[in-house]
Amino acid sequence: MSQLSDRAYSLFEEQQKIRGIDVEVVKRKMKSLKIETPSWGYGDSGTRFKVFKKVGVPRDPYEKFEDAAVVNQLTGACPTVAIHIPWDKVENFGALKSHAESLGLKIGAVNPNVFQEDEYMLGSVTNADPEIRRKALNHLIECVDIMKEVGSDILSLWFADGTNYPGQGHIRQRKQWLQEALDQTYKKLTPEMRMLIEYKFFEPGFYHTDLADWGMSFNAASKLGPQAEVLVDTGHHAQGTNVEHIVAYLLDEGKLGGFHFNSRKYADDDLIVGTTNPYELFLIFYQILDALAYGDDRARRSAENIAYMIDQSHSIEPKIPAMIRSVLNIQTQYAKALLINHEELQEAQRKNDVLGAEHAIRSAYEIDVTPLLVSIREEQGIPHDPMRAYLDSDYSKKIEARGVGGSSW
Amino acid sequence: MSQLSDRAYSLFEEQQKIRGIDVEVVKRKMKSLKIETPSWGYGDSGTRFKVFKKVGVPRDPYEKFEDAAVVNQLTGACPTVAIHIPWDKVENFGALKSHAESLGLKIGAVNPNVFQEDEYMLGSVTNADPEIRRKALNHLIECVDIMKEVGSDILSLWFADGTNYPGQGHIRQRKQWLQEALDQTYKKLTPEMRMLIEYKFFEPGFYHTDLADWGMSFNAASKLGPQAEVLVDTGHHAQGTNVEHIVAYLLDEGKLGGFHFNSRKYADDDLIVGTTNPYELFLIFYQILDALAYGDDRARRSAENIAYMIDQSHSIEPKIPAMIRSVLNIQTQYAKALLINHEELQEAQRKNDVLGAEHAIRSAYEIDVTPLLVSIREEQGIPHDPMRAYLDSDYSKKIEARGVGGSSW
Amino acid sequence: MSQLSDRAYSLFEEQQKIRGIDVEVVKRKMKSLKIETPSWGYGDSGTRFKVFKKVGVPRDPYEKFEDAAVVNQLTGACPTVAIHIPWDKVENFGALKSHAESLGLKIGAVNPNVFQEDEYMLGSVTNADPEIRRKALNHLIECVDIMKEVGSDILSLWFADGTNYPGQGHIRQRKQWLQEALDQTYKKLTPEMRMLIEYKFFEPGFYHTDLADWGMSFNAASKLGPQAEVLVDTGHHAQGTNVEHIVAYLLDEGKLGGFHFNSRKYADDDLIVGTTNPYELFLIFYQILDALAYGDDRARRSAENIAYMIDQSHSIEPKIPAMIRSVLNIQTQYAKALLINHEELQEAQRKNDVLGAEHAIRSAYEIDVTPLLVSIREEQGIPHDPMRAYLDSDYSKKIEARGVGGSSW
Amino acid sequence: MSQLSDRAYSLFEEQQKIRGIDVEVVKRKMKSLKIETPSWGYGDSGTRFKVFKKVGVPRDPYEKFEDAAVVNQLTGACPTVAIHIPWDKVENFGALKSHAESLGLKIGAVNPNVFQEDEYMLGSVTNADPEIRRKALNHLIECVDIMKEVGSDILSLWFADGTNYPGQGHIRQRKQWLQEALDQTYKKLTPEMRMLIEYKFFEPGFYHTDLADWGMSFNAASKLGPQAEVLVDTGHHAQGTNVEHIVAYLLDEGKLGGFHFNSRKYADDDLIVGTTNPYELFLIFYQILDALAYGDDRARRSAENIAYMIDQSHSIEPKIPAMIRSVLNIQTQYAKALLINHEELQEAQRKNDVLGAEHAIRSAYEIDVTPLLVSIREEQGIPHDPMRAYLDSDYSKKIEARGVGGSSW
Repeated sequence: MSQLSDRAYSLFEEQQKIRGIDVEVVKRKMKSLKIETPSWGYGDSGTRFKVFKKVGVPRDPYEKFEDAAVVNQLTGACPTVAIHIPWDKVENFGALKSHAESLGLKIGAVNPNVFQEDEYMLGSVTNADPEIRRKALNHLIECVDIMKEVGSDILSLWFADGTNYPGQGHIRQRKQWLQEALDQTYKKLTPEMRMLIEYKFFEPGFYHTDLADWGMSFNAASKLGPQAEVLVDTGHHAQGTNVEHIVAYLLDEGKLGGFHFNSRKYADDDLIVGTTNPYELFLIFYQILDALAYGDDRARRSAENIAYMIDQSHSIEPKIPAMIRSVLNIQTQYAKALLINHEELQEAQRKNDVLGAEHAIRSAYEIDVTPLLVSIREEQGIPHDPMRAYLDSDYSKKIEARGVGGSSW
Repeated sequence: MSQLSDRAYSLFEEQQKIRGIDVEVVKRKMKSLKIETPSWGYGDSGTRFKVFKKVGVPRDPYEKFEDAAVVNQLTGACPTVAIHIPWDKVENFGALKSHAESLGLKIGAVNPNVFQEDEYMLGSVTNADPEIRRKALNHLIECVDIMKEVGSDILSLWFADGTNYPGQGHIRQRKQWLQEALDQTYKKLTPEMRMLIEYKFFEPGFYHTDLADWGMSFNAASKLGPQAEVLVDTGHHAQGTNVEHIVAYLLDEGKLGGFHFNSRKYADDDLIVGTTNPYELFLIFYQILDALAYGDDRARRSAENIAYMIDQSHSIEPKIPAMIRSVLNIQTQYAKALLINHEELQEAQRKNDVLGAEHAIRSAYEIDVTPLLVSIREEQGIPHDPMRAYLDSDYSKKIEARGVGGSSW
Repeated sequence: MSQLSDRAYSLFEEQQKIRGIDVEVVKRKMKSLKIETPSWGYGDSGTRFKVFKKVGVPRDPYEKFEDAAVVNQLTGACPTVAIHIPWDKVENFGALKSHAESLGLKIGAVNPNVFQEDEYMLGSVTNADPEIRRKALNHLIECVDIMKEVGSDILSLWFADGTNYPGQGHIRQRKQWLQEALDQTYKKLTPEMRMLIEYKFFEPGFYHTDLADWGMSFNAASKLGPQAEVLVDTGHHAQGTNVEHIVAYLLDEGKLGGFHFNSRKYADDDLIVGTTNPYELFLIFYQILDALAYGDDRARRSAENIAYMIDQSHSIEPKIPAMIRSVLNIQTQYAKALLINHEELQEAQRKNDVLGAEHAIRSAYEIDVTPLLVSIREEQGIPHDPMRAYLDSDYSKKIEARGVGGSSW
Repeated sequence: MSQLSDRAYSLFEEQQKIRGIDVEVVKRKMKSLKIETPSWGYGDSGTRFKVFKKVGVPRDPYEKFEDAAVVNQLTGACPTVAIHIPWDKVENFGALKSHAESLGLKIGAVNPNVFQEDEYMLGSVTNADPEIRRKALNHLIECVDIMKEVGSDILSLWFADGTNYPGQGHIRQRKQWLQEALDQTYKKLTPEMRMLIEYKFFEPGFYHTDLADWGMSFNAASKLGPQAEVLVDTGHHAQGTNVEHIVAYLLDEGKLGGFHFNSRKYADDDLIVGTTNPYELFLIFYQILDALAYGDDRARRSAENIAYMIDQSHSIEPKIPAMIRSVLNIQTQYAKALLINHEELQEAQRKNDVLGAEHAIRSAYEIDVTPLLVSIREEQGIPHDPMRAYLDSDYSKKIEARGVGGSSW
């Protein structure tokens, strides 16, 4: 480290000591934070108005893994990659797995896609047509098979199912069909597999979404059994929703399976996580760290097994830099949350000291964690500034040879 | 009936026959619709900026029941009245009960109040102070005792508990305290009693509400047992929330206990039900009628036992007319929902005929049900136009003698 | 008319007479209501997740006009069709114009498109790159030329310009660039042309939209001059926004140019107008009719010249039926609004009779206007039920020959 | 300063030098930031459910100024205090002014109150009753007279005027009445006075607010003349509204008069500023600083004359600490915004470098400004930690003698 950053770090360390924070513990926890990047985050995506095609976008799943490997090398934090079927369908999944491993990666969550084939226009597992429901179920089960092939232990389920108009679908009937499909799929899981059930407030259904909120996913998962849990996509809530409350609630119930991280101001904007309201991300991590430290067995186990996954649509951003920034943003807020002094906070809570408790939270948030992150990267042997390192790298030039016209999604 | 309304009714009847609707069945169902009015809806209430005091507002619980009796006489639909403790606390609940009965009324839901005493500023059953939690619990149990005295079978629970700032309260701990209080209270219920658990998105808590959405109330109720159900206040949701979806969902789970009806455009505006988006109210009734007709045992039983209650804050309206209008609005939308041809609708749903299904719903909504309602009132021996009848009545003048300065809430 | 509908109509007429409504006046006003359908509403469109391709979708602008002609014939209300450039760009606009006229149609608003070419990814008229701004401006001016060729008098402007991240763009600078482009374009208008300036709360910009609300469009239009006015897209507002208030406001300022009608529950859902909250549409028409009857010269002229245009995305619906339904929904709410007794309403307003005024509005809304609409269609020589007529027509079969793969948008 | 904070400051200074920031300039700007606290922020306030009364709340306007003086002494930033009439109405305004001055304070904005007298239930300057409109206007003019007596140069106008139901009021007529009242009041202003016109999305009007958004206030102010400007209350917008966009827009128009700072997650929550989404506050200051540095004359002058005012409802917080925290939060975000490197940012904007521009903004936000603020306070001779200093002060004990039952609002 440079002399300046040395001084910054040693000052940081002393300040934290005074605050009662053990920096070595913080570092250890930081190093164990792993974030899964999605294969589709490296491809072109856009809005309904236009998908702008970029130079250098990977042309197949293999190239997506190569990009993901670069992100992992530069951040040291992204050893797994989520795949989407059929976007990442290949002849030979064993070969894809080997390719990943040769790059230092593993395949993470498998995401079935039951919303892009023509039959699914009016629903997949909740379609009124039993043939379509069957087709969708078969695809879910196919994905469990793929999980076995690629060594994945997470089935990550998002359904676009919903309706656009009152009366269009029979809501209770659809609810039951959905549960049946989940049930059939759940039975196919091997014991080490988990099924994460995502919910979404709206879009593409503009009247109702069959799994519209955490309560519906939670209830569905509860009926299935211990291997089913809820997946929280940070952008899938109504305006004003207190997402960290939901996180705390699910942890307390032992049912928080993972996150799809992204950022939003309006709808499901799918922007880079931590760019709209970074404080919210910090508060989510506060709830998780609290459950890890003070939760009962159920809450703690749930917190320990959270799958931290990014799910964004990089409509205008260069893909690899967007992913690096996302990882850095998560690390920043996680680091800040690790600096909360829980004893001080809980003391204020016990005394009903509103301003004291709020201050205990926010004073951690206001700390600049750059010295900490640089020190950790130094210890990990990765660049102090992964973004700068990427922009200066040969890789960022090399991929230009791919030209325009890579994978959408 | 006048000649014109006779013709209108006979035309209505013929038209419905052609549509496949049996008007006699509709009438029978309409007559059995009972709506509970709240004692506090007859008192003065307002916004945080001002409670405007009105002439003629009842000065005690006894006068509130007198007003409620007028609403019941004119509409034929409001035989029960919800009470709020301590707003309606009287020396002798037996006397209040007798008073109600002498007016043709019964006491409906009992609503504990654990938000207006100084101790509750930072929470009642979730307060960090165990003494305050105990006090709140005792009040809940006191209300169960009052239920026995007044012959009520519904304990209607709303908690103002929540926080204003991140960190102010320990969310998971508060969740557990809440469940403990519910659990202790539930144990006091006699077998014929039900506990309805309300949720609210925000206010007075502006960071988090301990029971923030249907999922939290539902989960709490599920843990308690069959006598606990969810209470849906139509104004307690995030913007855009599909309330009828929640209604359908809870019915399918057999856990919809009742409604607090009111209307909102922004927050918990507590306006007269059916004035902001009357179509939403109609769609709620569609889901209920569908569950009654096509639900499994659990859904049907839940639908049959729904407690339809009004909960509004008449900040600027004369109280009794506001209540009459509320009842009429509910009747109007309920009547329209009874005109849905479910066979036609379900046929369109089965065929994935989006526009056909939407049309089946909305064409019922567009029907003018005035002839039907007038005919029913004729048969019930009540005024064709209850509002007009009230405005022309002596009662509306008589209460002026009460002067200004009646009960707040 | 059948005997039943004869009776329904004569009853309707008598009832309205009693209410003080002159049905002949209502009919005349109904007949003069013209609604412009958009060429792109006949093409395939969808969400960012998928554009589902339909059988029978028009393959070129000429076929779009053929479909639009059918809608006009069946409803008698849609003699003009909006076009989008370059979606509807043809070699010979004169030929397109003649084609339209041969079908009994005229070309309505011309809509430039400055959001789908690669250069526009980060903005068109507000792009930081002056070359791109110039290109966008040239397209706007090109569209004014096309207006001359096709005989259009409305330039309908929507800009997708905005940013996704704080700092991405220089907001004030972009505001100035936008005004400059509008100014340059405005200067090209001939005296009989109008420029309508649309605003949008968000999407595709997810941090800010350069023209985000009515205030920004209004201010831009005010600076330009009398030929510039505001275009209200009913789906382009924040949750809870009182759209009819904005309508009334703009009318009072003489600056309401037109509507893009559609329906939304969440974001810019672009569903069939009148399906989510039909009451809102009715209330919009109430404000317009009030301005027509009681406005000063400026307000009245503005109300008289409103361009009623549909702008929807029929993602799952068959296109022509979706358009017919849209027109019928508009007619229904317009008809109801025509039944408001303004004297009664204003009397209640003057007396601060809150419930009386609300009732004056809503009692008109509750009237079933089917007899009126049927009677008008009878007089116009068009089918009583345009939707039924279409579904039974040969045309609905004939277009199947077009196969799958028609125009997107 | 202690040795540790010395080191922290010198490190901060070096780091900023490298970033191209002149810390001396930053300090100078920080010292000139003045924030007005509101007299009513020291009194009891609450929600519609309850106003919890606190020990030590000032019992009259004189005591409110004493509390405000303590906030000013400890923060060095709050030399003016806004007053509300009639809440702060005293026999002798000259005496109040002298009292303020003896405490080192001046009277800031004068806020008329036309919403708490019985006549105003259905509106003040937009009431259908001309007598009530006149009364309200007289009060506005009375407040201009009070301004003269107390030496205030800002008339701060918020109207609760609005309606709860469709049809209740005649929207265009009310718009005109409002403008007339503003016009009459404007004419009474002396040349050095400014009129700031606040808007609000909703509450207490739950159907429409006569001045609902910035566009309506802006248009009203534009018609009045240069002494009328818009007042932005940060909590008065629809969910999702980009407030900093509005700030930038108004600055560019030279019409941003001032702020009412507070924080909100849901409605107009009136919480301590900077506690819900501190990043938003930072982004507001970015726009202001940009206008100061790069705006044209009009924008710069508007930015220079912004009245920074706090307007909060401390329902559960101790009042003086809540105010101190509010001031500190504003200072923190203002300081961070002063650390933005505008050249770097604008370079990225010019190059359409999305991630670079976003990073230029957010990297300033992530800096811990504590060393800077401590250094400034050291230079100003005020406590390094004003909150700690207050909690340890005698004053915080002394006011307990006031007991419970001080002023509401």
